[in-house]
Amino acid sequence: MPVNLPVIDPKALFPVTGVRLGWTQAQIKQPNRKDLLLVEIAEGSSVSGVFTQNRFCAAPVTVCQSHLASHTSIRALVVNTGCANAGTGEQGMQDTLTTCQHVAEIMSISPQAVLPFSTGVILEHLPMAKLLAGLAGAYQNLADDHWADAAESIMTTDVAPKAFSRQLKVDGKSVHVTGISKGAGMIHPNMATMLGYVATDAAIAQPLLDELTKEIADLSFNCISVDGDTSTNDSFIVIATGQSGTDLITDRNDPKLVSIYQTLLEAAQVLAQAIVRDGEGATKFMTVTIKGAKTVEEAKTIGFSIGKSPLVKTAFFASDPNLGRILAAIGYASRECESLNDLDTNKIDLYLGDVLVAEQGGRAKSYQESMGQAVMDQAEIEVSVDLYRGDAQATIWTCDFSYEYVRINADYRT
Amino acid sequence: MPVNLPVIDPKALFPVTGVRLGWTQAQIKQPNRKDLLLVEIAEGSSVSGVFTQNRFCAAPVTVCQSHLASHTSIRALVVNTGCANAGTGEQGMQDTLTTCQHVAEIMSISPQAVLPFSTGVILEHLPMAKLLAGLAGAYQNLADDHWADAAESIMTTDVAPKAFSRQLKVDGKSVHVTGISKGAGMIHPNMATMLGYVATDAAIAQPLLDELTKEIADLSFNCISVDGDTSTNDSFIVIATGQSGTDLITDRNDPKLVSIYQTLLEAAQVLAQAIVRDGEGATKFMTVTIKGAKTVEEAKTIGFSIGKSPLVKTAFFASDPNLGRILAAIGYASRECESLNDLDTNKIDLYLGDVLVAEQGGRAKSYQESMGQAVMDQAEIEVSVDLYRGDAQATIWTCDFSYEYVRINADYRT
Repeated sequence: MPVNLPVIDPKALFPVTGVRLGWTQAQIKQPNRKDLLLVEIAEGSSVSGVFTQNRFCAAPVTVCQSHLASHTSIRALVVNTGCANAGTGEQGMQDTLTTCQHVAEIMSISPQAVLPFSTGVILEHLPMAKLLAGLAGAYQNLADDHWADAAESIMTTDVAPKAFSRQLKVDGKSVHVTGISKGAGMIHPNMATMLGYVATDAAIAQPLLDELTKEIADLSFNCISVDGDTSTNDSFIVIATGQSGTDLITDRNDPKLVSIYQTLLEAAQVLAQAIVRDGEGATKFMTVTIKGAKTVEEAKTIGFSIGKSPLVKTAFFASDPNLGRILAAIGYASRECESLNDLDTNKIDLYLGDVLVAEQGGRAKSYQESMGQAVMDQAEIEVSVDLYRGDAQATIWTCDFSYEYVRINADYRT
Repeated sequence: MPVNLPVIDPKALFPVTGVRLGWTQAQIKQPNRKDLLLVEIAEGSSVSGVFTQNRFCAAPVTVCQSHLASHTSIRALVVNTGCANAGTGEQGMQDTLTTCQHVAEIMSISPQAVLPFSTGVILEHLPMAKLLAGLAGAYQNLADDHWADAAESIMTTDVAPKAFSRQLKVDGKSVHVTGISKGAGMIHPNMATMLGYVATDAAIAQPLLDELTKEIADLSFNCISVDGDTSTNDSFIVIATGQSGTDLITDRNDPKLVSIYQTLLEAAQVLAQAIVRDGEGATKFMTVTIKGAKTVEEAKTIGFSIGKSPLVKTAFFASDPNLGRILAAIGYASRECESLNDLDTNKIDLYLGDVLVAEQGGRAKSYQESMGQAVMDQAEIEVSVDLYRGDAQATIWTCDFSYEYVRINADYRT
C-alpha cells in the first residue's frame, strides 16, 4: 500500500477555468478500466513541457516535442495507458500522428495543437481501432470537474490516483492550481517523469512558462527515484489558461508570480512525491538530503547513489539499520560524477533522522544500534549527509525495495 | 542456488609452488565457520593488486595499496570475513595495522610484507582479540593443498566456494594457475571486485605483472554486476611465485607469456562469472554483449545499464520476454556516458539468444512472443545488441533479481 498517500477527495480538486477533462474505457489492454483521457485547453493558453532524455523515447514524446516547437497554440492532450508506443519504429510514429489527426477532427483544431501521451508496455503496437473508437466517448465526457477521474484514467501499476489542488488569491482574484500524476515503476527521471500535468488559470506568458517548467521539474520530478530506470515516456506538462482574469505575467520578477510559482512548485513536488509514496512495492518513504557539496550535481548524484542502491533499499525494507551500506553508496557515487573523485570521506557526517550515525567518516561514538532502529521502524525516514566541502545541497525522494517490487515486476504483463 | 556453478573438487585444484594456505575458525561473527585465512608467499614472488575505487574504501584496502607502493616484497595475505572494517575511521586503520604487525611477528617478516583484507558488515569494528588469537592457528594450518578450504574460508553471503585451477606446459616445465574468489552481493566492480586471488608458479617480473593484472581485471571482474553496488573492499590479487623453474618473463611480447596470460585471464573470468552465478538470489546467468559501439566505454555502459536495471532483472527472473525494458535501459545509458547522447536508436538491433527481437529500433517483423519465451525459459541467456555506430564491443555478465535477493539482503545481519 502507498506510504502516507492521502486519498483523493474529488470535491477538493478545484476546476481550472479553461480546462475540461473527459475519459473513457477504450479496452486498450484490460476491460472495465478508465484508460483513455482527453483534455481540452482553452484558446490563448500557454502550455510547456519537459520530456524524458531516454534515447529510446516513445513516438508520442517525439511528436509532443515537435508540436511544442512548432509554436502552434496547444488545445488538447490525449493520454492512453496499457501501451507505451515505444520501440515501435515507423508504425508507432504513424499511429501517434493518426491519433492526433482524429482528435483534431473531433475537436475542429489543428493536429499540431494536440499533445499525445502513452504509457504501458514497451515494444508493442497501439490497438488503434480501440483507441480511435474511444476518442468520441472521451470527447462527450469533457467536463471541468473530472480531475479525480482523470487521475484514475492515467494509472498503470499505480495503486492509487495522485492529485493536487489549491486556490489562491492574486490581486483579489481567485487563481487555481490543480494537477495529476501517475507512475510507480521505471521511475528515475531525467528531465521529467511520466506523467505529470499541472494546470492553472493564472496568465503566464509562454517564454516565462517554458523557463518555469524546466526549473520546477528540476526541483520536483527530477528529484525522485523508485528503481533507477528512466522511462521512455516521461512527460511533465504545465498549462496556464489565463482564464482567472488576472494580469498576464511576463517577467520572472513580477511580485504576482511569487505565490503562483510557489504553488506550482508545491504541486509538482507533491505529485512527484506521490509517485514515490506509491512506488512499486513501497513500504517506506525516504527523504535524502545532501549538504556541503561543491555543486548541486554532486549533491544530487550522491543522493541518487543512496536512493538507487538495492542494498540500501532492502535494508530500509527490513527496517535494519545496516547503515554502512549508505556509506558504500556515497563512496561509489564518483562513478557518475567526476568531481567526487577527490571526496574526502574522513570529513563526512551521516544522520538518520536526528541520530548522528557516522562522524568524520567513521561510526559515531555516541551511536547505538537502538537509536538507529527507532528511526528505521518509522514509515517516513530522513537521511542526511554533510560532505563539508562546499555550500551546495539537494534533496531527493525515494522508497524501499520489497518482495512486492519483485512480484509486481515479475507479473507486470500477465 | 547458484546457476551452473560447478562444485569444487579439492583434488582438482593444483598447488602452486611457493604458496601455502592456512585457515581457522576465529569466531569473528559466527561460530563454527572458517572465517580467517592466512596465505604464505615464497620470497622473490611478484604480487600485484587492483582495488575498489569506492571513496569509502576500507582500511585494509588503503593499507594494501600503501604496502604494494612501498615495493616491499609481499610475503603474506591475511583475510577475515564477518566484518569489512570500512567506515571505521582511525580505529579501523589501527586495527588493520595491528593485524599486519601480528602476522609479521608470527612469520618473521616485515609488517609491510603483509596484505590485509576484510569482508562483511560495514560500520562495525573488528573483534581484534578473536582475530589475533586466530592467527596462530591459521599459521599452523599452512599447507599447499588447502585451496578448497581457502575458498570456503573467504565466503560471506556466498552459497558455494569458487575456485579455478589449470596445469600447463611452458618450455617443457609444468606451470600451475590456481585462484579463488568470493562475492555475491554489493557486486558492481570498479577496478576489481571483492575478493579474487589468482596464483601461478610462473615467473613474471613485477612491472609486467602490474600491467597484466590491470588488463585482466578490466576483462573479468570489471565486467560483472549483481546489484550495481560497488563494495568498499573490492580487491583482486595476482601472485607469481616463479617457483616452477621457468624463465623470468619481463616482456609483454614474450611468446612464453601467451598461454600463461590466456590461463590467468581464463582464471579471472571464470572466478568473476562464478560470483555472478552465485549472485544473491540468482536463478539466471546473463551474458550481455554490445557490438558496434564507438568506444569500449559506450559498449560497457550500455551493457551495465541493461545488467543493472531492476526492471530487466525482474523480467528475467519471471522468464517474461518483456524485452521493451531492455530498449529502455539502452536508451537511458546516456545518463552515464555523454558520447551516447547522439545514439540513433533507429539503427539498433536486439537479439535474445539467436532470436532477432528488435530491428532498426522497433519490434522485428519476424519476432513472435513464443520465440522469446523459449530463450527466456533457459537458465543461461545471451543478450546481444548491435548499435551500428563503430567497431568497439564489450561483454558483461550479470544475474536476475528475485524474491530471494530481497530476503537475503533484508536478513543479512540477523
